[in-house]
Amino acid sequence: MRDFSSDHRWLSLNTATVRKQGDLIHIIEACARHGIRAIDPWRDQVAAVGLERAVRAVRHAGLELSGYCRGGMFTSDAARRGEVRDDNRRAVDEAAALGASCIVLVVGGLPQYSRPGSVTSKDIAAARAQVDDAIAEMLDYARAAKLPLAIEPLHPAYAADRACVNTTKQALDICDRLDPGHTGALGVALDVYHIWWDPELMAQIARAGRDRLLAFHVCDWLVPTKDILNDRGMMGDGVIDIRSVRAAVEAQGFAGYSEIEIFSNDWWARPIDEVLRTCIERHRTVV
Amino acid sequence: MRDFSSDHRWLSLNTATVRKQGDLIHIIEACARHGIRAIDPWRDQVAAVGLERAVRAVRHAGLELSGYCRGGMFTSDAARRGEVRDDNRRAVDEAAALGASCIVLVVGGLPQYSRPGSVTSKDIAAARAQVDDAIAEMLDYARAAKLPLAIEPLHPAYAADRACVNTTKQALDICDRLDPGHTGALGVALDVYHIWWDPELMAQIARAGRDRLLAFHVCDWLVPTKDILNDRGMMGDGVIDIRSVRAAVEAQGFAGYSEIEIFSNDWWARPIDEVLRTCIERHRTVV
Repeated sequence: MRDFSSDHRWLSLNTATVRKQGDLIHIIEACARHGIRAIDPWRDQVAAVGLERAVRAVRHAGLELSGYCRGGMFTSDAARRGEVRDDNRRAVDEAAALGASCIVLVVGGLPQYSRPGSVTSKDIAAARAQVDDAIAEMLDYARAAKLPLAIEPLHPAYAADRACVNTTKQALDICDRLDPGHTGALGVALDVYHIWWDPELMAQIARAGRDRLLAFHVCDWLVPTKDILNDRGMMGDGVIDIRSVRAAVEAQGFAGYSEIEIFSNDWWARPIDEVLRTCIERHRTVV
Repeated sequence: MRDFSSDHRWLSLNTATVRKQGDLIHIIEACARHGIRAIDPWRDQVAAVGLERAVRAVRHAGLELSGYCRGGMFTSDAARRGEVRDDNRRAVDEAAALGASCIVLVVGGLPQYSRPGSVTSKDIAAARAQVDDAIAEMLDYARAAKLPLAIEPLHPAYAADRACVNTTKQALDICDRLDPGHTGALGVALDVYHIWWDPELMAQIARAGRDRLLAFHVCDWLVPTKDILNDRGMMGDGVIDIRSVRAAVEAQGFAGYSEIEIFSNDWWARPIDEVLRTCIERHRTVV
């Protein structure tokens, strides 16, 4: 297991962590001030400053991209599927332009939440089947662009509205069906927030192996969690034994960035330099 | 699958659903007014009116008990284990006096939340091991009292603070380890709120079979869920395909009550007769 205590070379910042404090250019400048070498930007943040300007800023800062957030939201009415497919192809093109190492897939829940305006459904099994088909289709396009797709299992609390892939096992089952050769084109993005509770977690990380482990995200689970979407904790402030999960992914050969992604009304209200200083300190002491 | 549309003979009321509207005697009187034949009372509600008075009220009303809530909160410091064991034995004695069909077990999460004052831990695997041991111990006592124990898997959102048994598979694994003979002394209480998201749900219900299916609870999952504990929905107001889950448990031979358990700041604020009328109507139309 890598020693993170003496520097933060393996820290990546998911830019949603400070999305209320400024635009992507502002965030990239802050990363430079704090010696952060990698980011994972969100599509809306890129769109807000323009793709070309984002690409220039990333290159000028010498940043790596530990991922690009996000593709997915695959579930929809039949009438919207072409639109969903094209939207995800644009995500691939943007990620390629930015030089991202993978695209994180948040697959969507029931269609009325994934793609508003779709007919209301309670059929989560149908949603899951649709996700399988849509990832298969996107995979062809992403392979051609040499962009790996990282399926992110989301906490079961988001099954209805954000992602109907809710366990590491379920994500790996999709990988096995669509990429039986373990080509590296399809894998998982594991965020401790979503998976820490899973009694099968350690076994599934071992099953994933190096080829499928495309991204590793950290934050913490607070007790109480006051808002199921936007009350995620800074590492060390909650109940997750983060280090044991990192040890498990690294035991499989994962050697990439430890990406900090915190959706938090609390941390969004603080100055960006305070947030980044705290991220770095916690990366060194509790991740 | 049973037809619930023409009456509500198979409706049971978990008394937490109206716990803010009055004490247990008041609730039992309301059940009589609405022709509700069964309840599942909570220990604190029984204690508030006294066990003997509760027993008399239940008998006088001719109510059945589809369960008794709750045993568990097994995780604690070593120093507290005797106290936890005795507390759970008292739950068995109370359930026997009340004539409950089973005791619902909410097993506890990390020890500092399960039994406040316990030393802080992030070791959920250790908590799970402790739960196994404690259920094994409680099972001896409950068998002697002929009281089945129903392990309730709780939604992963409660893994830290309420229950570290979070899937039906995990609960059934415990049953298989501690009651390999399927004697009926140990099984599961399945609440659609906690399990609806699980991609393995249908397979695990089939695995459970009639012997392990001791209780079936309904409410709904609202989107958005504003409070992870106390914003559960009335059946039909959320995203759960309740009928498909009931069909699955009945396909295994489950023929007991469909118990309504709703923790909701919204429904607690309404008059008890309105809540019960709505429960009955939804039981007949969407459960």
